[in-house]
Amino acid sequence: MSGAKCTRLSGTLIKQLLDSVDSILFDCDGVIWRGDQAIPGAPEVVNLLKKNGKNVFFVTNNSSKTRRLYADKMSLLGFNVSEDDVFGTAYCSAMYLKTVCKLQGKVYLVGSNAMKQELEAVGIQQTGVGPDPVTGKHGDWANVPLDPEVKAVVVGFDEHFSYMKLNRAMQYLSQGCLFVGTNRDSRLPLEGGKAVPGTGCILQAVETAAQRQAQTVGKPNQFMFDCVASQHGVERGRCLMVGDRLDTDILLGSNCGLKTVLTLTGVSTVAEAQEHLKSGCPERQGMVPDYYVESIADLLPALRE
Amino acid sequence: MSGAKCTRLSGTLIKQLLDSVDSILFDCDGVIWRGDQAIPGAPEVVNLLKKNGKNVFFVTNNSSKTRRLYADKMSLLGFNVSEDDVFGTAYCSAMYLKTVCKLQGKVYLVGSNAMKQELEAVGIQQTGVGPDPVTGKHGDWANVPLDPEVKAVVVGFDEHFSYMKLNRAMQYLSQGCLFVGTNRDSRLPLEGGKAVPGTGCILQAVETAAQRQAQTVGKPNQFMFDCVASQHGVERGRCLMVGDRLDTDILLGSNCGLKTVLTLTGVSTVAEAQEHLKSGCPERQGMVPDYYVESIADLLPALRE
Repeated sequence: MSGAKCTRLSGTLIKQLLDSVDSILFDCDGVIWRGDQAIPGAPEVVNLLKKNGKNVFFVTNNSSKTRRLYADKMSLLGFNVSEDDVFGTAYCSAMYLKTVCKLQGKVYLVGSNAMKQELEAVGIQQTGVGPDPVTGKHGDWANVPLDPEVKAVVVGFDEHFSYMKLNRAMQYLSQGCLFVGTNRDSRLPLEGGKAVPGTGCILQAVETAAQRQAQTVGKPNQFMFDCVASQHGVERGRCLMVGDRLDTDILLGSNCGLKTVLTLTGVSTVAEAQEHLKSGCPERQGMVPDYYVESIADLLPALRE
Repeated sequence: MSGAKCTRLSGTLIKQLLDSVDSILFDCDGVIWRGDQAIPGAPEVVNLLKKNGKNVFFVTNNSSKTRRLYADKMSLLGFNVSEDDVFGTAYCSAMYLKTVCKLQGKVYLVGSNAMKQELEAVGIQQTGVGPDPVTGKHGDWANVPLDPEVKAVVVGFDEHFSYMKLNRAMQYLSQGCLFVGTNRDSRLPLEGGKAVPGTGCILQAVETAAQRQAQTVGKPNQFMFDCVASQHGVERGRCLMVGDRLDTDILLGSNCGLKTVLTLTGVSTVAEAQEHLKSGCPERQGMVPDYYVESIADLLPALRE
């Protein structure tokens, strides 16, 4: 196989690459779907990979769904997937708090119902989700009631994020709580080039208020890969990471010694990858993929043989 | 007078400094008050300065009050002040949009009722303040209804800041609207070392989502000084800026060629000022004050003579 980086994956190279791996990790948003629409051909790619004996896993920074809900969405879109194969940051954050932080105490949660459920599933209590309406006056907010059992602030995607939540998170963090974020993605891409604000925006606001940096669980943190590897026995040298973002997916793959493919159905472009490559800057080389495809549907001809 | 920087202001030096200026600009939070409490002695300092023929102005990055409300608060705390002497970022942002941007169109406002009133006072329409509750599903948010007359997004302090407002601001900014912020202060200090999140947190969230930088009107932007100078004919060389923050108040003073005094009743410390001084870094020298005082009450002996 070629030693060059950022090569277009086509022809016989596809089969060579697939033969060289046992496990394939796919990002979700921008890779196998956009919003509520599957990328055309993606379900067939995933199902054929599994039929050909590959282990297929899904590794997403999105924290808005439980593993169960991801598996349901995937089934609906035609992917043949089990809940155990899905690693979202709602689940991985709960695992991180339990296994790495060994948290003894409650979580103040800026996040979704899915995060609440994944925390509860590993036995971690949290303070509740949903709106936190404005109460009292400006001078009272620094004295907002806090739960003394809270030992960690966890920030993920929260459609009910508000100034009051920002304030409450800041007050807990001023007391020295652990500070964990699901991910730093600034936008959630949708169909037609549209997007909505991502968890990165919420996390930035909390970090600015707290004057502290969160530890983020999501890609490019290797913890996401460790979660998959520890549960499914993945061999790094025979594993492929497929994603649409250079700064999360491809960097995770590089950090973990995986083969990497950038797909162009999401956020990053080949031009951006080539700029990283040409920069000569060592810390940017991790964001250069081994290969790129227009869409993961480009794998179909090799799989149908 | 001494050419040294960051000198403690005491003894005869106080009278020499006051004799060398005609106008004195005070920051408010952490300088003349903290929360709802006047700094002890501050009203007497301000009133005696005026009695001694000095022009006294108030220049605050806080956007939560109109000039009228500031004057009312000051009167209540014992300061002898007219509305025309107060320059907050609610007022200055409205002036900036009108005189610098020459805005033709409406404002999408992430801000307070005070900002609404100051915009209306200069004839600029805005889309309203208050809560923006969660509606619809994730996939719909990128298509949230937008007002086609909106030509600027303005971000200030907003206790009703929410994910929906963040999203709406992002969608307007994706269409190429002007992007103006009141200020970047990350925290609002309160009594007893407490604080609540400042506008800087909100602005960071919107900037991260929009992948654009806002133009901020507040200190250290010289526009704040220009507002005072254009309305009151202030001579830079005979003007003193008194503030508690090196990165806003003192930097504004340095940027405008004013004399500067750091007061230690707020955010910054002498140690921080000395670090800037010793750094040898040219861009940090603007954050070194000429003088410092424990409190502006230190000026009282010279004023009572």
